[in-house]
Amino acid sequence: MNSMQQKFATFDMNNNNSKQDMCPKKPKFGIMFDIDGVLLRGKTPIPGAAEALKALMNKEETEYEVPAVFCTNGFGLREVKAATLSDKLGVKVNPDQIVMSQTPLEMFHEFHDKWCLVSGPEHDGGSKRVAESLGFTKIITIEDLREAYPYLDWVDRTRWPNQQVEDDDSFPTIEAIVMLGEPIRWETNLQLIIDVLVTQGKPNQPPCIEGPQLPVLAVNMDLQWMAKANIPRFGHGAFLVCLENLYKKICGRDLEYTALIGKPSEITYEYSQKLIEEIATGLNMPELDTVYAIGDNPLTDIYGANMFNLFLDKKRREIEKKKREFELINASPKVGRRSRSTSDAKVEQTNHNSTDSHFSLHGDITNVRGIKRCTSVLVCTGVYKPELGDPNQTIGEDEVFQNSELEPSISPVAPPPTKRKDSVIDHGHRDLPYTEEMTRADHTVFDVKRAIGKILELENWKY
Amino acid sequence: MNSMQQKFATFDMNNNNSKQDMCPKKPKFGIMFDIDGVLLRGKTPIPGAAEALKALMNKEETEYEVPAVFCTNGFGLREVKAATLSDKLGVKVNPDQIVMSQTPLEMFHEFHDKWCLVSGPEHDGGSKRVAESLGFTKIITIEDLREAYPYLDWVDRTRWPNQQVEDDDSFPTIEAIVMLGEPIRWETNLQLIIDVLVTQGKPNQPPCIEGPQLPVLAVNMDLQWMAKANIPRFGHGAFLVCLENLYKKICGRDLEYTALIGKPSEITYEYSQKLIEEIATGLNMPELDTVYAIGDNPLTDIYGANMFNLFLDKKRREIEKKKREFELINASPKVGRRSRSTSDAKVEQTNHNSTDSHFSLHGDITNVRGIKRCTSVLVCTGVYKPELGDPNQTIGEDEVFQNSELEPSISPVAPPPTKRKDSVIDHGHRDLPYTEEMTRADHTVFDVKRAIGKILELENWKY
Repeated sequence: MNSMQQKFATFDMNNNNSKQDMCPKKPKFGIMFDIDGVLLRGKTPIPGAAEALKALMNKEETEYEVPAVFCTNGFGLREVKAATLSDKLGVKVNPDQIVMSQTPLEMFHEFHDKWCLVSGPEHDGGSKRVAESLGFTKIITIEDLREAYPYLDWVDRTRWPNQQVEDDDSFPTIEAIVMLGEPIRWETNLQLIIDVLVTQGKPNQPPCIEGPQLPVLAVNMDLQWMAKANIPRFGHGAFLVCLENLYKKICGRDLEYTALIGKPSEITYEYSQKLIEEIATGLNMPELDTVYAIGDNPLTDIYGANMFNLFLDKKRREIEKKKREFELINASPKVGRRSRSTSDAKVEQTNHNSTDSHFSLHGDITNVRGIKRCTSVLVCTGVYKPELGDPNQTIGEDEVFQNSELEPSISPVAPPPTKRKDSVIDHGHRDLPYTEEMTRADHTVFDVKRAIGKILELENWKY
Repeated sequence: MNSMQQKFATFDMNNNNSKQDMCPKKPKFGIMFDIDGVLLRGKTPIPGAAEALKALMNKEETEYEVPAVFCTNGFGLREVKAATLSDKLGVKVNPDQIVMSQTPLEMFHEFHDKWCLVSGPEHDGGSKRVAESLGFTKIITIEDLREAYPYLDWVDRTRWPNQQVEDDDSFPTIEAIVMLGEPIRWETNLQLIIDVLVTQGKPNQPPCIEGPQLPVLAVNMDLQWMAKANIPRFGHGAFLVCLENLYKKICGRDLEYTALIGKPSEITYEYSQKLIEEIATGLNMPELDTVYAIGDNPLTDIYGANMFNLFLDKKRREIEKKKREFELINASPKVGRRSRSTSDAKVEQTNHNSTDSHFSLHGDITNVRGIKRCTSVLVCTGVYKPELGDPNQTIGEDEVFQNSELEPSISPVAPPPTKRKDSVIDHGHRDLPYTEEMTRADHTVFDVKRAIGKILELENWKY
C-alpha cells in the first residue's frame, strides 16, 4: 500500500467510524470566532461573550471541549492578543488558538529562506519581530533599504543625505515582498516597494518592467476600519489601493499577488480549519464535520466563509477525481506505466497566481480531513446592523437591538458610506469582487451568546 | 457704445495698428522658457544658456527686449527661483518673470476669500506661506485640521492622543481643497482630504457622498521626476494617483478637479501668455503674434504647447461667433430685445469642471490680445533624447549629442520606463490622455542656444 492508498484508506475508515458514532460525547464541529465586534468592542467585552466561551469548556473552565480559534485581521504577536483576550474576558485563551492576519504566513515555507522586503506597522512588536515569529530568516526592512540605497526615499527633503553617499553594492537582491499591514510614511514604502518591483529586487539597477514580477505576499486587505472618529479610518487595503494603482500607472500592467492573506481570503480560513483540526486531534476527536464561523462583518467574515465553501467544494471534486484516477490505475496495472505520485500533483499546483496556489506551499491536496462545510453565523454587535429587506435578516425582532449596554467603539471594518440602497460600493479587494450572494450568512443572531446557543442546538451538543 | 462694443473696437484697432507696422524694431513674439533641462540641470547651468538669454536683452544686458518668462512645475516662492536663476546663470531674472507650478492660482480670486484646506510641501517657504503669496486669506493647513479633529489622523499610533480629547466644533467648514505639491506622510493628507470631501468640509459630521463635490484645485501633475537615483522619483502626480483611486474606491465615483494647474495644463500656458503680454505692454510692444515655448519634455512642455494651441483656436472661434452675434444685434435693433452682455457670457462659463472653466475666474473671454500661436521648440539637454524614427527628430545629426560637458543630474520629469517601442505607457494625468500627435514639437534643436538662434531667424529679429 503506497502513501496515497494509505491516505485514502484513512479517509474511508474515518467515514466508517463516523457512521458507527463510536464517541457520542465528542463534538463533530469547531468554531472560528472573529474578535472585534463579536467578543470585544475595542477594549470592552461584549456582554455574554465570556459566557459563550465558557459554554464550550469543561466544567472547571480550564480546557475547551469544542475546538475554537480566534481569527482577526489585526496585526501583532499572537501571545499579546491571547493575553488581551484572556484578560478582558476572564476566560483562558492560548496563543496557539489565535490567528492574526499574518499568522498563515507560517505555512509559506518557500519564502522563509528567501530575502524578503518586509513592509508593515511598527506597533505591537513591529514588522521585523512579527516576520521572525512567522519563520522568515532573511528579513530586509524598509529602513535597511533606505540605508543601502540613500537616494531612493526622496519625497521628504529633510531626509536627503547631507553629503555625497554611495549605494551598498553588496546589498542582497530582494527575492520577494511581504506586506504585513499599513506602514507609516506611505510615500516611502510605496516608492521603495515599486523600486524593488521594477528592478527585480536590485534598485540601483535601471528599471525594466518586462519579464516576470517578483512574488508579492500581502496580509490584511481591509480598506477601512471603525476607530474613534465618526468616519472609518484607512486600513492596509487603502495602502494596497495606492500601491496597485501606482504600479499600474508606472508599469502599465496589473500588480499580481502571490497570495492575499487575512479574512476574507480562503488561505486564512484554510489555516484556521487546520488549526481547529490540530486542536481536535489533541482532544482525541476522530472527526470534524463543520466549522462555524461567527463574525460581525458580511464583507469579510461571511464573504470569507462562503468563499471557503466554494473552495472546499472544489477540493472535494479534485479528491474525487484523483480517487477515480487512482482506482483506474490500480484496476489495470501495466508494466512501465508510472503511477501519478503525490509529488507530481504538487508540481502541477505550483502556480503562485492561482487562488489555490498556497496548497503547494504547505501540504498535499490529498492530505485533508473530512470537514464538509463552513457555516456562517452573523452577529449584530459590530459592523452589521439589520435593515428591512436585508437578506441576512432571519432573526426575530425581539432579538435585535435589545442590548443597549454596548458603548460605540472599535469594530474591525467600516460599513460602506451612505448611498442609495440599490447601488453597492465595492469596498472589498480588487481581486475579490463583491456579490450580494457571497455576503449572505447561514444564520443571523443578535450576539455571540445566541450564536453559541444556535450552534449547540444545531449540533445537539450539551444543549 | 456699450462695454462690449468698446472692446471689439479696441480689438479691431489693434489689428489695424499691426498692419501699419508702426514700430518695426519691436519684436512681435515672446518666449516661455522651461528651466530644468533647458537652462539648468539641477544646479548646473546648461552651456550656452546665459548667452541665449543675453541675446534677448539690450546691449547693456540690463533689460529684456524680448518678453520672456520662466515656467517650471517646481514648488516655492518666485523670488527664490528668480534669485537662483540669476545667481547660477549670471543673467538678471525678475521674480515677476517666474511661473512656478502654483503661480496661476493668483488668478483664482473666487477662492481667495474661501476657507481652503491647503496640502503641500513644507520646503522652499512652505505651503502656507506660498498660499498667502498667491492671495489666499483663509488658509487651513493639514496640521490645523489634525488639531481641530484629533481622531482623524489614525495610521501612526504614536500620534494618537494620550487622553480623551474633543473636536473643535467652532472650526470653520472647509469650502475648497488646494493641493500645491507632494506632502510628506501621505497617509495623513490622503485621509484628511478624503474626510473633508466625504463630509462636505466638516469632518466631524457623518459621511455623505451624495450631492456636489467640494471644489478641488491641484497644482503640478508630474507623476515622477529624475533626481539623483537611477530610477525616477514620485512627484505630486503620484500623490494624485493615490487620492483619485482611494476616492473612487471609497465613494464609487471619480474625483473631479475644478482646475489642474502646472504644465501641461492650458491654465499655465494661458497664465504665461498673459504675463508675456503684460511685459510686452511695459515694453511698449503694440502686438504679439507668437509665443515660443522652449522645453525638454515632450509629455509636458510640448503636449502643453499643443494643447494651448487647440485652446487658442477654440477661443478664436468663440470670439468670431460673438462678433457675428454682436453685428447681427446691431444690424437689426428691436425694441424690448435685450442684447447679450458680457456678464451673461460670464455666467454661462461658470462651470468649474470644464477645461476652460478658469476663464470665468479671471476675465472676460473677449478681453484677449492677438497671440495667434504657441510654437514649441524641443531641446535635447534634458529628458528628451532623439531616437531613430522619432517624429520629433528634425535636427541635423551634427547638432545632436555633440555637447559632452553636461553632467547627468536633475531634470523635471522622468522618461517612461524601458518597454517595447510600440507600447507607450501613459504617464500623464488621468484627465489629459496621451496621443503621439500632442507630443510632437514644431522644432527640435540641440540646446537652448540653438533654440534662440532658430527663433531669431524665424522672426528675422536682430539676426
